[in-house]
Amino acid sequence: MSQDTPAPSVPSPGEQAQLPTVRPARIEDLHEIVDLLADDPLGATREGGDLAPYAAAFARITADANQIQVVADLGGQVVGTLQLSFIPSLTRRGTTRAQIEGVRTLSTMRGRGIGEVLLEWALAEAHRRGAGIVQLTSDSTRLNAHRFYERFGFVGSHLGMKLELRRR
Amino acid sequence: MSQDTPAPSVPSPGEQAQLPTVRPARIEDLHEIVDLLADDPLGATREGGDLAPYAAAFARITADANQIQVVADLGGQVVGTLQLSFIPSLTRRGTTRAQIEGVRTLSTMRGRGIGEVLLEWALAEAHRRGAGIVQLTSDSTRLNAHRFYERFGFVGSHLGMKLELRRR
Repeated sequence: MSQDTPAPSVPSPGEQAQLPTVRPARIEDLHEIVDLLADDPLGATREGGDLAPYAAAFARITADANQIQVVADLGGQVVGTLQLSFIPSLTRRGTTRAQIEGVRTLSTMRGRGIGEVLLEWALAEAHRRGAGIVQLTSDSTRLNAHRFYERFGFVGSHLGMKLELRRR
Repeated sequence: MSQDTPAPSVPSPGEQAQLPTVRPARIEDLHEIVDLLADDPLGATREGGDLAPYAAAFARITADANQIQVVADLGGQVVGTLQLSFIPSLTRRGTTRAQIEGVRTLSTMRGRGIGEVLLEWALAEAHRRGAGIVQLTSDSTRLNAHRFYERFGFVGSHLGMKLELRRR
């Protein structure tokens, strides 16, 4: 497209086709998923390397009906991922909580709506399975992420606290 | 004890016996647990009433090997509760997360070490089952709770975001 071509006011058929599909992750996706986890300012220091611990964790996730790992698939390429967990709970009059963890999109494809497609899927699935609340924590330094989630209606009402356990 | 009796420097046998035992919750505890959830500035507005939804949630918790609801039992009385959840995860090189939810202690027995006993149990159980991180969120207004968790080594590094789903 030349510079003086006006931006189209509606997506062309080709652009519409560029929205990814959200589908359950398969073991063959694992390498691409780990690359996504490491392709991140915080993830770079704590992700990557040997695939074996990731494969073991993937087996635990797929064996648990309350866990779903999904990928955003764009023409066969994994361009995003997230995990959705369902947590039965007594609080809020027995509300089931849906929890979102590890949201990542390919850094070279930011602003293409991949995160939106993943979040829309997660909220629809949470509703479909009867969750009354969706929750996540986001590192305090990820201000763009906070604004992204606020656009979906998330409210940053809580302090998220973490304690790393020593491997004794 | 008269006012001029010096405070004992070590707990008497009677005082030591007043630490509660942490044990799995039973369905017979449900009424006392719900009373605890409602006995709280935030819980007062969103807990209590009909026990049926709590009983249904309790059945979901006990059916899930990754969920444990425990109570602090002091001579047969339920004086505290929390839920511990285990969440397999790809992030942090396949780290299993232990998550603490719904920590409550009887308001008339604050400062008696009940919360400490519950938290120590949760951290030990998380370690025993191979979790690499323990996490929780605490309402931003619960400043005393934040200090309590910091004493165990929790770091408030994250923003906890919640989205209530409309019952459509």
